[in-house]
Amino acid sequence: MEFASDNAGPAHPKVLEALIAANTGYAGGYGADSVTEAVQARIRDIFEAPEAAVYLVGTGTAANSLILATLANPWDTVFCTSMAHINEDECNAPEFFTGGTKLTLVKDADARMDPEALRAAIAAEESRGVHGPQRGPVSITQVTERGTVYSLDHIRAITGVARDFGLKTHLDGARFANALVALGCTPAEMTWKAGIDAVSFGGTKNGCLGVEACIFFEPAKAWEFELRRKRGAHLFSKHRYLAAQMQAYLRDDLWLDNARAANTAAARLAAGFAAHPQVTLAHPAEANIVFARFPRHLHAKMQRAGAHYYVWDGDPFSGDPEEQLMGRFVCDWSADPAETDRFLELLAQG
Amino acid sequence: MEFASDNAGPAHPKVLEALIAANTGYAGGYGADSVTEAVQARIRDIFEAPEAAVYLVGTGTAANSLILATLANPWDTVFCTSMAHINEDECNAPEFFTGGTKLTLVKDADARMDPEALRAAIAAEESRGVHGPQRGPVSITQVTERGTVYSLDHIRAITGVARDFGLKTHLDGARFANALVALGCTPAEMTWKAGIDAVSFGGTKNGCLGVEACIFFEPAKAWEFELRRKRGAHLFSKHRYLAAQMQAYLRDDLWLDNARAANTAAARLAAGFAAHPQVTLAHPAEANIVFARFPRHLHAKMQRAGAHYYVWDGDPFSGDPEEQLMGRFVCDWSADPAETDRFLELLAQG
Amino acid sequence: MEFASDNAGPAHPKVLEALIAANTGYAGGYGADSVTEAVQARIRDIFEAPEAAVYLVGTGTAANSLILATLANPWDTVFCTSMAHINEDECNAPEFFTGGTKLTLVKDADARMDPEALRAAIAAEESRGVHGPQRGPVSITQVTERGTVYSLDHIRAITGVARDFGLKTHLDGARFANALVALGCTPAEMTWKAGIDAVSFGGTKNGCLGVEACIFFEPAKAWEFELRRKRGAHLFSKHRYLAAQMQAYLRDDLWLDNARAANTAAARLAAGFAAHPQVTLAHPAEANIVFARFPRHLHAKMQRAGAHYYVWDGDPFSGDPEEQLMGRFVCDWSADPAETDRFLELLAQG
Amino acid sequence: MEFASDNAGPAHPKVLEALIAANTGYAGGYGADSVTEAVQARIRDIFEAPEAAVYLVGTGTAANSLILATLANPWDTVFCTSMAHINEDECNAPEFFTGGTKLTLVKDADARMDPEALRAAIAAEESRGVHGPQRGPVSITQVTERGTVYSLDHIRAITGVARDFGLKTHLDGARFANALVALGCTPAEMTWKAGIDAVSFGGTKNGCLGVEACIFFEPAKAWEFELRRKRGAHLFSKHRYLAAQMQAYLRDDLWLDNARAANTAAARLAAGFAAHPQVTLAHPAEANIVFARFPRHLHAKMQRAGAHYYVWDGDPFSGDPEEQLMGRFVCDWSADPAETDRFLELLAQG
Repeated sequence: MEFASDNAGPAHPKVLEALIAANTGYAGGYGADSVTEAVQARIRDIFEAPEAAVYLVGTGTAANSLILATLANPWDTVFCTSMAHINEDECNAPEFFTGGTKLTLVKDADARMDPEALRAAIAAEESRGVHGPQRGPVSITQVTERGTVYSLDHIRAITGVARDFGLKTHLDGARFANALVALGCTPAEMTWKAGIDAVSFGGTKNGCLGVEACIFFEPAKAWEFELRRKRGAHLFSKHRYLAAQMQAYLRDDLWLDNARAANTAAARLAAGFAAHPQVTLAHPAEANIVFARFPRHLHAKMQRAGAHYYVWDGDPFSGDPEEQLMGRFVCDWSADPAETDRFLELLAQG
Repeated sequence: MEFASDNAGPAHPKVLEALIAANTGYAGGYGADSVTEAVQARIRDIFEAPEAAVYLVGTGTAANSLILATLANPWDTVFCTSMAHINEDECNAPEFFTGGTKLTLVKDADARMDPEALRAAIAAEESRGVHGPQRGPVSITQVTERGTVYSLDHIRAITGVARDFGLKTHLDGARFANALVALGCTPAEMTWKAGIDAVSFGGTKNGCLGVEACIFFEPAKAWEFELRRKRGAHLFSKHRYLAAQMQAYLRDDLWLDNARAANTAAARLAAGFAAHPQVTLAHPAEANIVFARFPRHLHAKMQRAGAHYYVWDGDPFSGDPEEQLMGRFVCDWSADPAETDRFLELLAQG
Repeated sequence: MEFASDNAGPAHPKVLEALIAANTGYAGGYGADSVTEAVQARIRDIFEAPEAAVYLVGTGTAANSLILATLANPWDTVFCTSMAHINEDECNAPEFFTGGTKLTLVKDADARMDPEALRAAIAAEESRGVHGPQRGPVSITQVTERGTVYSLDHIRAITGVARDFGLKTHLDGARFANALVALGCTPAEMTWKAGIDAVSFGGTKNGCLGVEACIFFEPAKAWEFELRRKRGAHLFSKHRYLAAQMQAYLRDDLWLDNARAANTAAARLAAGFAAHPQVTLAHPAEANIVFARFPRHLHAKMQRAGAHYYVWDGDPFSGDPEEQLMGRFVCDWSADPAETDRFLELLAQG
Repeated sequence: MEFASDNAGPAHPKVLEALIAANTGYAGGYGADSVTEAVQARIRDIFEAPEAAVYLVGTGTAANSLILATLANPWDTVFCTSMAHINEDECNAPEFFTGGTKLTLVKDADARMDPEALRAAIAAEESRGVHGPQRGPVSITQVTERGTVYSLDHIRAITGVARDFGLKTHLDGARFANALVALGCTPAEMTWKAGIDAVSFGGTKNGCLGVEACIFFEPAKAWEFELRRKRGAHLFSKHRYLAAQMQAYLRDDLWLDNARAANTAAARLAAGFAAHPQVTLAHPAEANIVFARFPRHLHAKMQRAGAHYYVWDGDPFSGDPEEQLMGRFVCDWSADPAETDRFLELLAQG
């Protein structure tokens, strides 16, 4: 009954096999190896973007921060939602890598940025010459931090507003695959065809050990990115071991299969919550994350039974047994349906 | 005949086995797992430093930069040699992570910092109130960037000068194990017993995929380091896969065995160079790196035979066949003695 | 009819006389002169703070940014209102000087920060270990950016919340004197006696050419501040010319007289607005700034008559003549009552 | 007998008169005033550079740091001499404003950078891909920090090397006027006609209170500079008081007259030193700074007589009376020939 995080789960065995396969003799360092080259080509293929600049790093925060630093000036402001990972969960890494760019928080609904609120927020900046922060890129997260998924129309609405002001849009795709299978579209449709300029393409949460791709559809700043990556200490010397993970991840649809498994598990969980008289969903559960509200006494029971998940609203340890808490439940590719069923059965017994 | 770099070599099979062993079910993220805890304890044991703060990161540049940022203020200057990795090979990462600390280059002999030159360099700073940079930490590299090894007396001389001015000393130990087996001393003797305050303890170049430990013998700034690591995007979420590498590396003396193999291969190479009438050693070869000078025609021959190494002085591609080039030869744990012999035989044929 | 800004006004003649008086022969550079020493002592006296560390800089943004950089770590977040000058009007200078500190925007009423909203905002941070930004200092502006003044009780409420969490409070006193005469209290009462830790003490907007004092009531970080000031290029070499301005400003109550003149002019204006059937005050006018709403046709008329002020809401150039605009009117020490009357008379004629 | 620094001297009375003249009623803030506009036009005229971007700041360190930040990337290295003010006397301000650019120290003779050493230093960088710092701008100081002056040929040699590598050259002209009158050339000849791209044009040391101009002959990055200036807190709100100083400085050749007076005083001093059997010049005295070596007993005598200057080499307070010290003597525009003569007479008496 493990719902704490998709980074608490294991790596997929095929990813580890790929590491072993890559571990043959000598290979060029710092990305000058054949596995890296192959994986870059594979990503360009998958995204139908033969000109794209593709780089690998070890963490999602590195991917987001390095991309934003490449897109934004230090005197700019980045437009994102208040619950964006770049705002809430990166300990000011975006501010560090950009050299002090600000984040302007735009209204959302279920963690999806509101396009008209974005338009108003952008319009409100840069009206005071050098005094205010200047307009910088827009950043959205897909799957969002609340488990919802932007539709293609919604993404186009966001990037359309950004382009009206000449701004770029970054997509934080830490859970890219989960969103993709939820939408049933192609990577190109979910990104550059919808106006996205750069993507943090996650592997870690969906079966890798630790690898994310940074993708720029317009490669003009590719060299700048390479320098920023090295200066940020994110260029791995034995680079083939990053690349091998990603190669296995993208081979034979492993990434999509993993994402489908995670989403299916979350849907099963969400259906169980919806059917429970004392539980309500806090947000639509559209991918592999479920937010639910339930009384404290239910929480206490599930904890005693050994379930793991984070409580985001309310004090899990004390108070009125009927008071509502909000829990976050994340399913990863390795989620065991039997465990989910066990959890729901226990819950159903109230 | 692979002598390009110890990061071009493979990972040791036991390190990969450890990854597989760690890949069992769910585990806490961001270092809250039992493997990480075990490896921290193991490092404290090895260093006889029960109070030490120990952290893992994925690259050596991250280890160096994060440690220096923790030890130095942005208005300080770090004292190092001109060929220090932090000066020459990190694309200003130390300056980035520290927020603009300067590096003051101190005279060396065979890449070993001269203690009296260090004293003079420190004395020359901070004599102008707020105008000049302030005195910051000293940083030395062991094994040095020219393949030499500091003796314990030499390290004590350096840290003694630093302490005379109240300054800390950092040891960049990207090749820590190679130096340790060369000296035949304990980790404690080579570090805190000799006055070292913080260590970048390398694993990547000596058989791991990508992991380095950051060790502070005085843990006062441990929390600050943790925040800097996260803000620098160097906190891995699936942290157990960093830890498992290091755990295997330190188990059953693998790290020392690997280092001995690399040093032995380099000694074999250096002996062959020394015996060759047309080759001279550019620096004493004391660990796993050999610098040698030889005429261009010998280089051309070895290239044709498929040998891989970097030429650091002279144009490898054109010029007088008798002109001297300087090559750097690095041996890693996986070096094949037969290949080294083949190289030396070819060389001996002139 | 000049209401554009209090930095559009002239310097007071006595300030210029002081420059001439200070211009005698040689004097130590970088603050090592007798005028600087005298003005530091004078400020300590005025604030009844014999231990305070006092420094001069040339701009208000420098004062704010250098103080915040001294109080906050790069991984912290500063708590301020959305309309805070440090958020809206300094082109990310606070982020630059702090090395990437975030600003968390706290709810206000008439630009005065709400203490309970502050408590909630602080409580919401630092609950995620290294992941979120850490709690940093609180910063409030007195006179606020909307022309209101914090009561002493209100300041104590804010600093009380900050201290409950062990946080420092900064007061941006670009219009310190205007607030002081509005409250009729002492500088000590409005600052350290009410829990304030550091003050940007403005001179520029109230009769100087360009000088602000930075005051730390607890001098522990005085030397760090001096290094930050020099590193920020804000240490003036011919420092006596900063000091002489401040000396004249604080002599014979010039600063208080100037502030009273400005406040009186603004009160006259506000009274005229309040009496006008088509004008409403947008915020209480408590010092030297007045925000008023009025129909576009009135604006057009006043513009034709040569009045200068900024329109902050609404398009001043086109639209329905009855649509409401919001204008900001600032009075400085040199405001001419006859001009204010002329403005009000024109306005009264409709 | 005041030779400590040209920033210890007074401002010229005409500069103060200009402040009073500018102090009439209201004027636009932040540079939107007629005096600023006039002084920008005047500087473009003087430099025969109608397209130049011209900005004013309050300190020389701000001018240098903001210009270098505009010319250099954070991953670059700036080429300068070891005694460059940007290296020795700005407390890492260039590193701060650039976001961590390194400084590479190039060999000099009498503080003038050696063009062939520059070529070698540039050639040595950027040969390691992303690993080393990248090649950034060259920065030279005119008058140098040792009182020498670059000839036009020498400047052209430096900028020629820079251009061979596609690099820009910055001239730190804190004592621009002193060099100009020493060379007897035009501002254009000493700058853009000799290949200089940007100039810190000093006013403070030569009769102003505190103002320096930043001049870019190619205005492509003008807007970026304006944002950097504001973000660095160096945009003065009551900007006319910066501009008025510079306007007076450039009117009726005041700047050149002041510089000539200072240079003449220094030449008188240098001649006296040269004639003294116990004194030797440490560097050619070509503008308004003189470096001289003399025995400690002479120093003690001059100190007792009340002479002010800094001792740069040797302990001024104790040691063998015959031991050589090196003193720096700076003459400003207000130097009194009678005082210089008195100093030399006392010195002559031994």
